Amino acid sequence: MSSGNSPVKLSSEFDIHVRFANPPADLRAAISRTKSSLFSGKFERLVLGRGSADADLLKDARTLVSLELSLAAGSLVRSIAEETNQPIEAKSDANSTLGLFRGLATFEQLWYDYEGTKYTLQGGAEINDGPSFPYRGFSFDTARNFYPVSDILRTVDAMSWVKLSVLYWHIIDSQSFPLQVAAFPELSEKGAYSASEIYTQDDVRRIVQYANERGIDVVMELDSPGHTTAIGAAHPELIACASKSPWSKYASEPPAGQLRIASPNTLAFAKTFFDSVASALPGTMMSSGGDEVNLPCWEEDEETQADLTQRNMTIADALNQFVGTVQGVIAAHGKTPFIKSDMVLTHNVAVLNDTVVVVWQTSEDAAAVAERNLRFIHQPSNYFYLVHMTSYECILLRSIRESHSGTAPTRARRFVHAQYWLLSLWHLLRSPVRASQMPLWSEQSSPENLDSIVWPRLAAAAEVFWTGATLPDGTQRVGENATSGTRALARLNELRYRLVDRGVQAIALQPKWCVLRPGECDLDS
Amino acid sequence: MSSGNSPVKLSSEFDIHVRFANPPADLRAAISRTKSSLFSGKFERLVLGRGSADADLLKDARTLVSLELSLAAGSLVRSIAEETNQPIEAKSDANSTLGLFRGLATFEQLWYDYEGTKYTLQGGAEINDGPSFPYRGFSFDTARNFYPVSDILRTVDAMSWVKLSVLYWHIIDSQSFPLQVAAFPELSEKGAYSASEIYTQDDVRRIVQYANERGIDVVMELDSPGHTTAIGAAHPELIACASKSPWSKYASEPPAGQLRIASPNTLAFAKTFFDSVASALPGTMMSSGGDEVNLPCWEEDEETQADLTQRNMTIADALNQFVGTVQGVIAAHGKTPFIKSDMVLTHNVAVLNDTVVVVWQTSEDAAAVAERNLRFIHQPSNYFYLVHMTSYECILLRSIRESHSGTAPTRARRFVHAQYWLLSLWHLLRSPVRASQMPLWSEQSSPENLDSIVWPRLAAAAEVFWTGATLPDGTQRVGENATSGTRALARLNELRYRLVDRGVQAIALQPKWCVLRPGECDLDS
Repeated sequence: MSSGNSPVKLSSEFDIHVRFANPPADLRAAISRTKSSLFSGKFERLVLGRGSADADLLKDARTLVSLELSLAAGSLVRSIAEETNQPIEAKSDANSTLGLFRGLATFEQLWYDYEGTKYTLQGGAEINDGPSFPYRGFSFDTARNFYPVSDILRTVDAMSWVKLSVLYWHIIDSQSFPLQVAAFPELSEKGAYSASEIYTQDDVRRIVQYANERGIDVVMELDSPGHTTAIGAAHPELIACASKSPWSKYASEPPAGQLRIASPNTLAFAKTFFDSVASALPGTMMSSGGDEVNLPCWEEDEETQADLTQRNMTIADALNQFVGTVQGVIAAHGKTPFIKSDMVLTHNVAVLNDTVVVVWQTSEDAAAVAERNLRFIHQPSNYFYLVHMTSYECILLRSIRESHSGTAPTRARRFVHAQYWLLSLWHLLRSPVRASQMPLWSEQSSPENLDSIVWPRLAAAAEVFWTGATLPDGTQRVGENATSGTRALARLNELRYRLVDRGVQAIALQPKWCVLRPGECDLDS
Repeated sequence: MSSGNSPVKLSSEFDIHVRFANPPADLRAAISRTKSSLFSGKFERLVLGRGSADADLLKDARTLVSLELSLAAGSLVRSIAEETNQPIEAKSDANSTLGLFRGLATFEQLWYDYEGTKYTLQGGAEINDGPSFPYRGFSFDTARNFYPVSDILRTVDAMSWVKLSVLYWHIIDSQSFPLQVAAFPELSEKGAYSASEIYTQDDVRRIVQYANERGIDVVMELDSPGHTTAIGAAHPELIACASKSPWSKYASEPPAGQLRIASPNTLAFAKTFFDSVASALPGTMMSSGGDEVNLPCWEEDEETQADLTQRNMTIADALNQFVGTVQGVIAAHGKTPFIKSDMVLTHNVAVLNDTVVVVWQTSEDAAAVAERNLRFIHQPSNYFYLVHMTSYECILLRSIRESHSGTAPTRARRFVHAQYWLLSLWHLLRSPVRASQMPLWSEQSSPENLDSIVWPRLAAAAEVFWTGATLPDGTQRVGENATSGTRALARLNELRYRLVDRGVQAIALQPKWCVLRPGECDLDS
């Protein structure tokens, strides 16, 4: 990127033209949304005086009358959704309608409002852009507590503004089963929190299409064989140690319960279940989860023990058979199977060669997975969990300054420093897949705090996922570079105010006094 | 309280009658609001099956046709607002319109909805209630970031539902000056973040009246002589070390700057300033703040040094004179002066005998203040700061279980345990005033996360402030009593869902699975 430095304002006749034949409908829709949000945005520049600070510059501003969208000659023209649903190794944000969509997101964020005039100070900028990581994800738990469709769509919108590429949807769990499954409608009828807390097949189609048209692939996780107690509401015969007490002996979280993997009935159920869900999903990736299985649950379950004896198997055999079965169904649908890392590292389960492992326990596990020549997504609980972010922000705050007050600037700096850590961490890793995601677990989250726990924290990760170790100006992100840190904070502040302007309740990172004076609240200024 | 155990439903003709002559307008308005929220509430009981679990009971429910409000014979009838604005030692929630208002809050929270029918299972209950602490406060910083009036009113409403009695309004600070002052309109004109981020005199009147009519006194804090940089936007001549760099040498937070207390001009200003604000406030309490004054700021300020020399004073003399001046103005308005604890404990400033000290640094300071025979409000940063709650929740979470996941039940237990700590802490204290408040500092808070950072955390404190050490059933709250802890969590869950039903975005404390099964998610169940 070469920064522009001349003021340009948007013509009231401004339009966006596509310079190739037959642009797909979702690109045309995206263009229409971009025009609409360009004109409706009320975000003013974050400087003293806000928009009025630029009033003089605007008098001489040139006027932009159109934006031209083009692709390299001979490029294949597919819809954004088709480009989005490419396999993980073929994902590309460049030279496609998806690349144009990413460009529109950048273009939108160049503009400010001043008394109804939309302008930028970046006239003449050249941006030659592309992502560092093809897989840039957000993992969303909609089972511990339920989120209405509108919350998911708003989250998808915000994800697209920061160019995330994957919604990893942890849709069901032991606490509730909100997914309507065509083959087993009773699962959500009996396992959802209520009739109004179900994602119908139409809801899922709508969410996936909405996401795909915004450059976001959906990887649905049907977590199994653990985290499945809610299946027992409709099919108690499939669940071992259901709600058994004390739960802490049989599960990581209440209620206890997991699939009776040694039972042929369970295998038949799992096959149909995965098949039914997979057939309804357009994407090329799907996850069977697999974290936190609990051995005492099966050891003390009479039915499981009887099945094992009758079939002359160990529980490890049964686990292999279960995983093999569900991975087979996923693969049969042409999708890449994902699995949680403890299945491979703790339980030594055999998986398909092209399996993507979701490394979630600690970042150190990534190396062990790579040693097995498996690809992975990086989602370590010791760094990436949104529910832990406030805690580790504050622990660090305390180590920096064992004192009383909110100390905004220190906390804000800390926040930015998290970026360095994330990235310096990734430098330690060698992965065939450059892929990462931040999860939101919903034990203590719900629609009421969705925006405030996710934004703008997720945007800090999204920036690093997209940009990688080197900033556009050549600065290395890694290390204690105060200048770069200050600039990152200014970018996050701007993004936060843009999110709020668009109806996302992102939290404040600093007092507005600091926001309007970038750098002046740094600890050494 | 003796729990009722028979089902009662609300007649569609239900009405509330006042059994004494000339009920004041604010009581009639409160009655009208109560009737309205009783009928509009959609909150269903938090059990499996929700309202339908009670369907059978409701068939035989008796019908309540009216609620009768009466006072002991010979009671003085004053408005709720008048009762609310009593001096701290005369505050009483009993046998007054204010007591009736508290009773309405309790009454409202006995009712559930099931398919439009409002019912309670507590028919026959007798509640003989009164607060343990007369001063039950929430301190609200509207200066680091601005909150619209509607946010403050919604917060006041929620405060009244949990029977808090004081809004301690930290309205101005170094970052912005949003208070319109009759005598110095230029302060907010130049010191507010923008013209739309000002509390006009009408706004303040409206907020105070709204709060008073809901049993909430307003203590306004004009923090001084520190935390005043924003005054310099209009009156730079009054501020020493304004925005001096590095800020960390001259202030706890940027920007640096505090009143030139040695200057006669400043004293004259402060007198008129406090007088102008105090005349517009009906309450009997007012605070001059006084935390975190910085000595190097004055030591390096040429004007201050010149004033000290000319007047043959030390900075300690000047500080005494400044505090004496503003306390004199507060007292002249018949108000009790409040001051922050470091003024007394660190700077040894002389204060009026009836001063209330806001103990904010650590809870240990309370004993030192009590030794000086001064009354105090307890607001220690090591326990009560809402901005720190998430961090210390998580630090404890880690010590309990050094593990990966959100572990909702553990976190939820931790949350409830906070209650024990709070109370066991207070047991250590002997105070002539039973008074406490939780503050929200707004360096990283804003309208976007106001509800989610405050609720239901503040309600846990409000319960303890109201109930004290002994629960209505005689159980002692202090100690690791699991049964009582479980019940406290159930109460908080219910309150949280009631808050959400009324439009307050309170966070979830647990997965809904746990909420509907009280006790089943406890660590030992």
